[in-house]
Amino acid sequence: MSEENRRIVLASRPQGVPTGDNFRLETAPIPDLQEGEILIRTRFLSVDPYMRGRMNSGASYAPGVELDEVMVGGAVGDVVASRHPDFSEGDVAQASIGWQSHGVARGEEAHKVDPRLGPISTALGVLGMPGMTAYFGLLDVGQPRAGETVVVSGAAGAVGSLVGQIAQIKGCRAVGVAGSDAKVDYICNELGFAGGFNYKTAADYGEALAPLCPDGIDVYFDNVGGSISDAVFLQLNTGARISVCGQISQYNLKRPERGLRQTWLFITKRLSMRGFLVFDFAERYAEALRALAGWVQEGKLSYREDVVDGLENAPAAFIGMLQGDNTGKRLVRVA
Amino acid sequence: MSEENRRIVLASRPQGVPTGDNFRLETAPIPDLQEGEILIRTRFLSVDPYMRGRMNSGASYAPGVELDEVMVGGAVGDVVASRHPDFSEGDVAQASIGWQSHGVARGEEAHKVDPRLGPISTALGVLGMPGMTAYFGLLDVGQPRAGETVVVSGAAGAVGSLVGQIAQIKGCRAVGVAGSDAKVDYICNELGFAGGFNYKTAADYGEALAPLCPDGIDVYFDNVGGSISDAVFLQLNTGARISVCGQISQYNLKRPERGLRQTWLFITKRLSMRGFLVFDFAERYAEALRALAGWVQEGKLSYREDVVDGLENAPAAFIGMLQGDNTGKRLVRVA
Repeated sequence: MSEENRRIVLASRPQGVPTGDNFRLETAPIPDLQEGEILIRTRFLSVDPYMRGRMNSGASYAPGVELDEVMVGGAVGDVVASRHPDFSEGDVAQASIGWQSHGVARGEEAHKVDPRLGPISTALGVLGMPGMTAYFGLLDVGQPRAGETVVVSGAAGAVGSLVGQIAQIKGCRAVGVAGSDAKVDYICNELGFAGGFNYKTAADYGEALAPLCPDGIDVYFDNVGGSISDAVFLQLNTGARISVCGQISQYNLKRPERGLRQTWLFITKRLSMRGFLVFDFAERYAEALRALAGWVQEGKLSYREDVVDGLENAPAAFIGMLQGDNTGKRLVRVA
Repeated sequence: MSEENRRIVLASRPQGVPTGDNFRLETAPIPDLQEGEILIRTRFLSVDPYMRGRMNSGASYAPGVELDEVMVGGAVGDVVASRHPDFSEGDVAQASIGWQSHGVARGEEAHKVDPRLGPISTALGVLGMPGMTAYFGLLDVGQPRAGETVVVSGAAGAVGSLVGQIAQIKGCRAVGVAGSDAKVDYICNELGFAGGFNYKTAADYGEALAPLCPDGIDVYFDNVGGSISDAVFLQLNTGARISVCGQISQYNLKRPERGLRQTWLFITKRLSMRGFLVFDFAERYAEALRALAGWVQEGKLSYREDVVDGLENAPAAFIGMLQGDNTGKRLVRVA
């Protein structure tokens, strides 16, 4: 092949908020395939909050990216060569090949994307990892029951916007916390949330939340953490469940934040809190995909994609997403 | 009856650590019984950490004690009069009659104590509320599996000392955090804990804990909260469970403490944390009593009672217990 691979590598580790200098665009030859591998030409790549953790040295639940290595992440694109029996040239595949124009994946680690289910970009959004995260994190971890109030932070993001809608599909009242008036407008007027507030302009989170949750809060789906969670906790009902999906307010801190100790509430309110990774539910992805695709087709679940053009703009797209400049799923269109 | 009732009432609300001035000993006539009630002459009364919360105004999970009202709490004593068909004069009963020499309880709210199971004082300890708390809080909330490491804070107290032993009965390794070298000696050398440390002299809780938990921590039974919990959390294994029973380090604070935000760990380690009240398990008390009494009789579960004589000394016994001057169950012998 005469094409070259363009890729973005981790040039240096961020101190606090990442900057463009932490990334470097470079070219490299397209690798030859080994038996069992496929070559994907990227059409969309995903930028997600968890990637901030991978930029640090050392492992959290997964190893960090090494310096000068390609940034990690999911992508969807065309299979341009295959040495795996399940994939043929012309297939569309989703795999964790990172921020590059061409990536090699082992066939077992790639998923064939069915273009009939929706635009292929949805394999990185509503029908992909964010969709699975919302589905299992709300339904399995949060255990919502019809009539309950579900509060979600990061409510206009890729996961949060789905959580609120799935809550409503299950008969719950959804309330969202988001970072702009436009996002609050989006979740309330386009997605049907019962209410929401803009935490960037609210003087007091508790006072903003209370009138939106007159019957208290039964499920808190937490993407954000920090002082938004402090306020939500104080309004949790007896027996409430907290599903911990992300803590984006903490990812760019240079040193760990201190906050209110609220463990006493766990006793008085019999709270339960559980953290999860979507991979914990890998055996049930087919179930989630069926449900999510069905709801999309029935018009019950809508999604928005926030697409940035050009691999070279992936760092800025990622940095902006960490600061909340996206509504819905932030994607980078590569080809 | 010519006897008078001696009782201790809440004279004022504490600011921070309670003092003797917050209590007042007074006498009052012994009330007449209504139909369905029994009169108990107290032999032992219980002082427990939860009572600190009841001294505040306003309700937490239960209403606070009103000023000039009798301090709440469980007691065991002789039934000296009965207008309830299930109780006769001469029975021994346990009921929440508070800090007084004579108390009236409705029969349905009292439990007959079987003296063949052990000294009647155990109805306030290993065979009473602390025993039930340890049993359900460890086994149902903590879900320990054989071979796992269970860490308990407040390990030499009424509940903690039982938690570690029940963990061992279930094939776990018990490690305790306690507040004196004598307590650490007690849990390790008399109760068989695999290890323990004195948090009052340890320079670094994490460094004290690590060699005691070489395989990490699978269950944390938390009676204490605060910075002991901070250290334990950092050594929890993937899938660990936190059973929140008490937060005694926080009860006397004049303003809420701030601490490390560790919610991120819930995601990376898939932690789950649940708070409970023993009353949540009221329907299964008989099961717990059978198990606990059986283990005591088989010599698998030992307990220590730390008895202070005289109703007038109940305030000092309580205040001292909050500061950890007891080993095992702190009781007040009234008659």
